[in-house]
Amino acid sequence: MTDTFGPRITGSDALEKSIDWVIRKLKADNLSVTTEEVVVDYWQRHQESLHFLSPTRGPVPMHILGLGYSVSTPDPINGLEAEVIVVHSKDELEQLGQRDEVRGKIVLWNNPFTSYTENALYRAFGAVWAQGHGAVASLVRSVTPFSLQTPHTGVAEIARIPMAAISVEDADLLERSLNRHKQDPETFPEWPKVKLIMGASTELESKISRNIIIELKGREKPEEIVVVGGHIDSWDVGSGAVDDGAGCFIAWETLRQLSRLERPPRRTVRVVFWTAEENTSAGGVVYARNHPEKDSSRHVFAFESDTGVFDPYGISFAPGTAKDGKKRDSAEFLTAAGEYFMGRREDLGYPGAGRHVLPNPFGADIEPLCKRGVACAEFVPADPFPLPYSTSPYAIKYGTGNRHHEDDMQSMVKDHNNGKEYNPFHNYDYQNNNSKKHHHHRSRSSNIHDKYRRPVDTGYFYYHHSEADSMGAFTPDQLKRSAAVMAIWTYIAAESPIEF
Amino acid sequence: MTDTFGPRITGSDALEKSIDWVIRKLKADNLSVTTEEVVVDYWQRHQESLHFLSPTRGPVPMHILGLGYSVSTPDPINGLEAEVIVVHSKDELEQLGQRDEVRGKIVLWNNPFTSYTENALYRAFGAVWAQGHGAVASLVRSVTPFSLQTPHTGVAEIARIPMAAISVEDADLLERSLNRHKQDPETFPEWPKVKLIMGASTELESKISRNIIIELKGREKPEEIVVVGGHIDSWDVGSGAVDDGAGCFIAWETLRQLSRLERPPRRTVRVVFWTAEENTSAGGVVYARNHPEKDSSRHVFAFESDTGVFDPYGISFAPGTAKDGKKRDSAEFLTAAGEYFMGRREDLGYPGAGRHVLPNPFGADIEPLCKRGVACAEFVPADPFPLPYSTSPYAIKYGTGNRHHEDDMQSMVKDHNNGKEYNPFHNYDYQNNNSKKHHHHRSRSSNIHDKYRRPVDTGYFYYHHSEADSMGAFTPDQLKRSAAVMAIWTYIAAESPIEF
Repeated sequence: MTDTFGPRITGSDALEKSIDWVIRKLKADNLSVTTEEVVVDYWQRHQESLHFLSPTRGPVPMHILGLGYSVSTPDPINGLEAEVIVVHSKDELEQLGQRDEVRGKIVLWNNPFTSYTENALYRAFGAVWAQGHGAVASLVRSVTPFSLQTPHTGVAEIARIPMAAISVEDADLLERSLNRHKQDPETFPEWPKVKLIMGASTELESKISRNIIIELKGREKPEEIVVVGGHIDSWDVGSGAVDDGAGCFIAWETLRQLSRLERPPRRTVRVVFWTAEENTSAGGVVYARNHPEKDSSRHVFAFESDTGVFDPYGISFAPGTAKDGKKRDSAEFLTAAGEYFMGRREDLGYPGAGRHVLPNPFGADIEPLCKRGVACAEFVPADPFPLPYSTSPYAIKYGTGNRHHEDDMQSMVKDHNNGKEYNPFHNYDYQNNNSKKHHHHRSRSSNIHDKYRRPVDTGYFYYHHSEADSMGAFTPDQLKRSAAVMAIWTYIAAESPIEF
Repeated sequence: MTDTFGPRITGSDALEKSIDWVIRKLKADNLSVTTEEVVVDYWQRHQESLHFLSPTRGPVPMHILGLGYSVSTPDPINGLEAEVIVVHSKDELEQLGQRDEVRGKIVLWNNPFTSYTENALYRAFGAVWAQGHGAVASLVRSVTPFSLQTPHTGVAEIARIPMAAISVEDADLLERSLNRHKQDPETFPEWPKVKLIMGASTELESKISRNIIIELKGREKPEEIVVVGGHIDSWDVGSGAVDDGAGCFIAWETLRQLSRLERPPRRTVRVVFWTAEENTSAGGVVYARNHPEKDSSRHVFAFESDTGVFDPYGISFAPGTAKDGKKRDSAEFLTAAGEYFMGRREDLGYPGAGRHVLPNPFGADIEPLCKRGVACAEFVPADPFPLPYSTSPYAIKYGTGNRHHEDDMQSMVKDHNNGKEYNPFHNYDYQNNNSKKHHHHRSRSSNIHDKYRRPVDTGYFYYHHSEADSMGAFTPDQLKRSAAVMAIWTYIAAESPIEF
């Protein structure tokens, strides 16, 4: 699908052709498939280029990707030339703005990666903030902890000025050049300038796309739905294999495997490939609107994969409050179930792979369901690049370079768990409440792996929204094992007697 | 230098401007600097593009870099369109050639990375081999173990057909597309075609460049020379910070530090920044020709850095045979000296950083000296990315995914040392021949680090000859610590009483 139809940006023919192909294949698998229409926007990238106008080198081509919903430069053919100012926070921008030092300039947001949440903020709002002070364009350092000159696009608030991401290397080159000019204007007399050309077009609510829905009716409680899926759209660069073709694939495989059981699970399992996640999450919004909770059909568990599919690590989970407004003990149940079902399975990669239950899932497609009280979970892969690199915040925090010694690893694992050592066996023993000793022993043997396998955090973003998002980022074997883990968790949710 | 003048390909103004700048700075440091002229070639990249002509997607732009000395496509504006055949060995090419299946085609060499030596062979000779069977162009998978859609250029034998590197992702897309056509011609009826446009020009021996030579006269044996350096030229993409600006910098800093000693070392220390390493190694050849071994001036030790500067690991070393035709015990001496001088120094990153002495140096600039019997060494950084990734040969060999457990690490370390566990303390105790116990203890404490720190092997090639070669690949602190290690090894060689 990713090779044959290419990237699947919302509104594109490639997306709809991919959806058609998926439907044909699902029917060939004898699965019960329907679609629901979603009105979507269509943003298109046309010509775009950025050159650093170096006084010593001449025009230096830079690595740029316009952001979703960006407008063109006022002259889309000749572009615009302007001086660059570099900022690292909204406060810094406002201070410069108060001194009227932003007007007529191109603002570059150059914050090294700390977390996706933090850095994507500058991508999303940088242009809107900058235009308020008279900036003529907004550039953002690509949101990634590691770069090989690869820019990363993404969605942004609609602004009147063009907005684009540039590579980490190019952002740093511009900042170094500006610093040299400020610190040594005699040797570097010119304020750094760039030439930006962008052509792009936005057609709001101009196209129809579709959510794909596949259903396996529940054996005992067909009205209780465990919904599981990913999003079928992608950005317009790369091939959307990591984000989120793989997520759809493992959900599809989950349903294919469960539909082969002699006895289907007690609850209905419904796989959804949501559309238009990347720009407005319109697919998830429409799905939630079309499927309200009622006694004849209600969601008990919503499970998404949208942070990549590498080696399986586990799930992140938030209990539901659907029926009585109270949180449930389902997290403890799942922690024990994971240990029980996956603790010994070496065929998942190592004993315990896929077992971990972490708090706080995120996932744009299921968010409307989570917000109305449905128990929500996200598939969590292991981080494909879990170690500190010289360009990563871990390196900055724990010292330069690529120090991989035990202390660093332990600190990192602690950090990830808000200062607490992570112990997946903390509360609950599914079989035997007082077998702490046994668990301690098991825990130790798994720790060899855990120490070097963090849940996905930074590594997914190497590929995210870039040309580098391709099938080569993961292996068929990783897909298989992740599909197995998703199938097991889905089965647990669909079969379990507890209320989520 | 790398920001202000840009990449420094042999023959370019940027290279000569950089050399001028270096000379000015060296003089400002009060160092004794001379140059020697080197006649060099000038290869220039002009327009170039590659599109996969997908029957379902239309033209898909691919990520391409022409190889050094490539010719243009016969029509440099409209390029050429041709079907692609994929090969993995010279044998495979010849079998296809015997069936006349190469004529009129574009050959793609698509071998996953195993080692630089092996894979660079296809880059260097692929076009010459392919043209013999009637191919119209030769493409090679970029020589790197990890890719984010970044192509990697490099030098190749002059051929009559155009030759270029493409990204790992694009090479795999073409191979998958060809395999689909062959395996399922009904669904995929068209043989994959591409459109290649290349404009390039070669001017052989058309320019003059310079080696830069800086000297610190020896205190007791000024006629015995320890030569240390890197190469000042680079490829025409990226900024040549990793390859080999950093190598030059740490050699420069070595001389700057040694020239501050109250008592200069016994032997003369000569720093050379060789030119034109990337295409013909002309700088190294001219240097060796201009500086023959004679009693009044002879090299005892040649020391280069050209595999990147990350955290210091040590040196690789080959003993000299200069004076009496016999190999010396200098490797044992150096192993002990490294332990003695660097074993306890935490300021180098960890105790023992920079200490290791490995066999078999390589380094194109000093090769002519090594071949005439001078003891040779290469600075060895730690691998910046030492762990198996899903796209690396380690992952292929040790299982899919990113398994970082102890057994894998141990296997990898063993592999690197041809099946033997690596023990840097194997032979010689500088202070006390029978203190094995002490060494064993020390060894264990260092092993925590060694296990996760391999000498550079694959990680350097993430950046090598690509747009991603930039200052951001390493930190100022790594440069400082590496310069310290190079200065210590240089001092040992220049001061030591033993004959190398």
